[in-house]
Amino acid sequence: MTLRRQTFDIDCRLDYELPAPADFLFQIHALQGLDQTVQAESLQITPTARQHVFVDPVIGQRLLRVQAVAGTLSLHYRARVRVERLLRNPRAVEHPIADLPDELLPNLMPTRYCESDLLAPAALKLFGQLKPGISRVLAVCDWIHRNVEYRIGTSTSTTTARDVFVQRAGVCRDFAHLALTFCRALNIPARLAVGYARFDTPPPDFHAMFEAYVGGRWELFDPTRMTSPYDLVRIAVGHDAKDVAFATIFGAASSKQILPCVEKVRA
Amino acid sequence: MTLRRQTFDIDCRLDYELPAPADFLFQIHALQGLDQTVQAESLQITPTARQHVFVDPVIGQRLLRVQAVAGTLSLHYRARVRVERLLRNPRAVEHPIADLPDELLPNLMPTRYCESDLLAPAALKLFGQLKPGISRVLAVCDWIHRNVEYRIGTSTSTTTARDVFVQRAGVCRDFAHLALTFCRALNIPARLAVGYARFDTPPPDFHAMFEAYVGGRWELFDPTRMTSPYDLVRIAVGHDAKDVAFATIFGAASSKQILPCVEKVRA
Amino acid sequence: MTLRRQTFDIDCRLDYELPAPADFLFQIHALQGLDQTVQAESLQITPTARQHVFVDPVIGQRLLRVQAVAGTLSLHYRARVRVERLLRNPRAVEHPIADLPDELLPNLMPTRYCESDLLAPAALKLFGQLKPGISRVLAVCDWIHRNVEYRIGTSTSTTTARDVFVQRAGVCRDFAHLALTFCRALNIPARLAVGYARFDTPPPDFHAMFEAYVGGRWELFDPTRMTSPYDLVRIAVGHDAKDVAFATIFGAASSKQILPCVEKVRA
Amino acid sequence: MTLRRQTFDIDCRLDYELPAPADFLFQIHALQGLDQTVQAESLQITPTARQHVFVDPVIGQRLLRVQAVAGTLSLHYRARVRVERLLRNPRAVEHPIADLPDELLPNLMPTRYCESDLLAPAALKLFGQLKPGISRVLAVCDWIHRNVEYRIGTSTSTTTARDVFVQRAGVCRDFAHLALTFCRALNIPARLAVGYARFDTPPPDFHAMFEAYVGGRWELFDPTRMTSPYDLVRIAVGHDAKDVAFATIFGAASSKQILPCVEKVRA
Repeated sequence: MTLRRQTFDIDCRLDYELPAPADFLFQIHALQGLDQTVQAESLQITPTARQHVFVDPVIGQRLLRVQAVAGTLSLHYRARVRVERLLRNPRAVEHPIADLPDELLPNLMPTRYCESDLLAPAALKLFGQLKPGISRVLAVCDWIHRNVEYRIGTSTSTTTARDVFVQRAGVCRDFAHLALTFCRALNIPARLAVGYARFDTPPPDFHAMFEAYVGGRWELFDPTRMTSPYDLVRIAVGHDAKDVAFATIFGAASSKQILPCVEKVRA
Repeated sequence: MTLRRQTFDIDCRLDYELPAPADFLFQIHALQGLDQTVQAESLQITPTARQHVFVDPVIGQRLLRVQAVAGTLSLHYRARVRVERLLRNPRAVEHPIADLPDELLPNLMPTRYCESDLLAPAALKLFGQLKPGISRVLAVCDWIHRNVEYRIGTSTSTTTARDVFVQRAGVCRDFAHLALTFCRALNIPARLAVGYARFDTPPPDFHAMFEAYVGGRWELFDPTRMTSPYDLVRIAVGHDAKDVAFATIFGAASSKQILPCVEKVRA
Repeated sequence: MTLRRQTFDIDCRLDYELPAPADFLFQIHALQGLDQTVQAESLQITPTARQHVFVDPVIGQRLLRVQAVAGTLSLHYRARVRVERLLRNPRAVEHPIADLPDELLPNLMPTRYCESDLLAPAALKLFGQLKPGISRVLAVCDWIHRNVEYRIGTSTSTTTARDVFVQRAGVCRDFAHLALTFCRALNIPARLAVGYARFDTPPPDFHAMFEAYVGGRWELFDPTRMTSPYDLVRIAVGHDAKDVAFATIFGAASSKQILPCVEKVRA
Repeated sequence: MTLRRQTFDIDCRLDYELPAPADFLFQIHALQGLDQTVQAESLQITPTARQHVFVDPVIGQRLLRVQAVAGTLSLHYRARVRVERLLRNPRAVEHPIADLPDELLPNLMPTRYCESDLLAPAALKLFGQLKPGISRVLAVCDWIHRNVEYRIGTSTSTTTARDVFVQRAGVCRDFAHLALTFCRALNIPARLAVGYARFDTPPPDFHAMFEAYVGGRWELFDPTRMTSPYDLVRIAVGHDAKDVAFATIFGAASSKQILPCVEKVRA
């Protein structure tokens, strides 16, 4: 068996208060595509607002635009998603630059949160001598797990991979940013993956992992070790968290509640 | 007449020295598309190297991948390009977020060189009270022209828009980055445009401008005022200079000569 | 009359909780010297702890070292202080570098929070053309008042003058840091002044202003405009907030209460 | 024998070109004090300029102020200096905060180039578990020697310890800054020491080391390993390079030559 098949029930509520009208760009729909199948879903927006969903032409993730009036805005998204994820290939190789598919090259470039150019010297010092391959990506994850503290409140919306490297603390997003930044600096294509994950201890929230392109496909990794890569229902993948924020708000709005719950469905 | 029609002859030479094999990603082909027509072109790579060109599926710019052996690498690109550029619309309006086409939303996000999130407070202080529309984009250009010195050697490959805002000096790329960062902070979609331009005084080099989306289309602006937006033969447009560098090198290589010349063809 | 004479009663309580022993360096004693006379004072530390006070040999400010055991630590400082402050000289001149006293030169240098080297280009653009003298220092204060929002929560213990310049928001310390940074960039010696001030609206807290050396003496300025420079009972002056923090803690301790109250004593 | 006694001959030339009058603050005099005795010295300034030397009241280093007219400015400093340096104490201990002399506390604070607050988490991860004492300071030096490349041109006048930590490259000043930053983060008082040193391979230049306070005295360390701490004729010690630059220039001046030569005098 090379696949892990699981089904998840998602129940996600978002509540906002708006002193004035505001535009929202949400990414909360489970990704329909890659190794995921959305079997059923519903989205309720209260009050009714001008909205539409568009599909990213490359990956297939769905983005929801909402034009909200002043007052409150509530979203309730529910879905049942089948995930059939390939088991990680423990012998996956790194690819020489020349062998990478054209469309993957942007995943080697630095982005707002992931300054792989600035961190390249450190990445080479730390991981440059290691044998190429998935084991090197795992060494990156191990280093981060040993050297970065998971601590809520240590990072903000402007914290970048360099900041995380220096302050040695962050949350899931920061862990993933630093990991994928190291990978890019090592010429391994890497991108952020965000979605719904099942947690035991922490309060439910969206989760972020990263994907590295090794062995001819994208492999998922969770450097926080809080969940298993098989237990992430992806919403989106992107260059970094600016691409795949669950909510980008144009205007003033305060978040009252973020409650994304996930349950595994028993077979 | 609402079009300015011009024809340009491009003659571009790039020479590198490579102590070891290296992979290159070049963006030197004139953009075939938008308001440009490549009437003739040739590319000579010496010595012969494994190469291929791929076309960006969204914009249509061409990217050249070259796998070079140790020694020297020379490129000689020549082209005749017809540019039929719409005259700038002096009454172009800004669009409310809700009216922006889906595919333009990424042009509002901060990127590696363009921290529109960090510079938003300054952008709002400086330009937030101005009447929306193309006149506000021009005010951004004017402010930069008055407050930023054009000075070669003041910026490096890691200089961002925030750095330019603080150090008040830079080159064409820095001017364009700061301008487009301000625009994004004002919720005006903006992107970098790079290409060939005709200069009188400075030594020939690639040039960078920026585009802002106003009045339902992308308008070109040159905040350095060194050239006219009608005189740019675009190679590519992208989020910032990481996307559209004329040469991204994976490996060690030293540049011996960069010589992009442009001549207007007399009617 | 060239002096404003006032008397202030200070009542300051600080409470900490310590999970383990910790060393404290406090600066809470009213400055005895310059234009201030401490007429009476008392300091109560609970529980009794190993402590001693030393006097800075240059300025005369007092630093209190406390070696606290685990548990709680409370300080209660009370003082009556006479302030006889020279009225601001509206015709105070700037001094050429060559005329500055030797011991003032360090007040021209950049420090941890005040990167006058990085902000020099912006300072010269904004204020370089203005007539030298105290009016230029006031122009710096005005610019900050117009362009920086006073907003609690916008800055942290690592926020520098450059950050404040970019984010255009901060608290009293940030306002003073940015102002003195601009002054240093203009070759006007400047330093931070912290102390007790009487507020009407905000909750009582320590206050920060800055001093610029013009007209042959140090003049006090409050770029927040929340108080008058005549109403500050200085605790200390220093290069920036790292020098004159009211509490520097070596070890883990959480602050439970900071309550510095000041009352003017009626004549 | 606990002392290493050596005599050095210094011959230092500095040449500048000034488009306009400028003020200079030089620190080129060998430190008269600590473990050094200046046996003979001469200073020639051409052309004659308004000048004076003042002595730092705390350390005793000498600062030379020169008011230069437009044209050229040349300094020629020569000295014979006897250095009687205590041999390093291999069992020197770290001191608890509470036992540090009052006047050393500022050497624990972050400064412009040495953000010991930002780098504290990394310092604790890397060195926090090591046995306190001089061996830990040596471990800091070793780590830097292994992880930072000595490479001229990698740093500028605004490069800080954090930058060096990230970019993993620098020159002697950067090595010393990073080392002393780590020490401060570990609560070991540390400061920069600059002076004349004898080099074999590199072109002669001023040299920077750092001092850490262990075993009840300041010990010198050279994390570049290019010279021996016994071979440094100190000019000055200070918080960081802003304090002890060999030349601080107020005005425009271009350096034509910096030539500080040192020879050991045979016994």
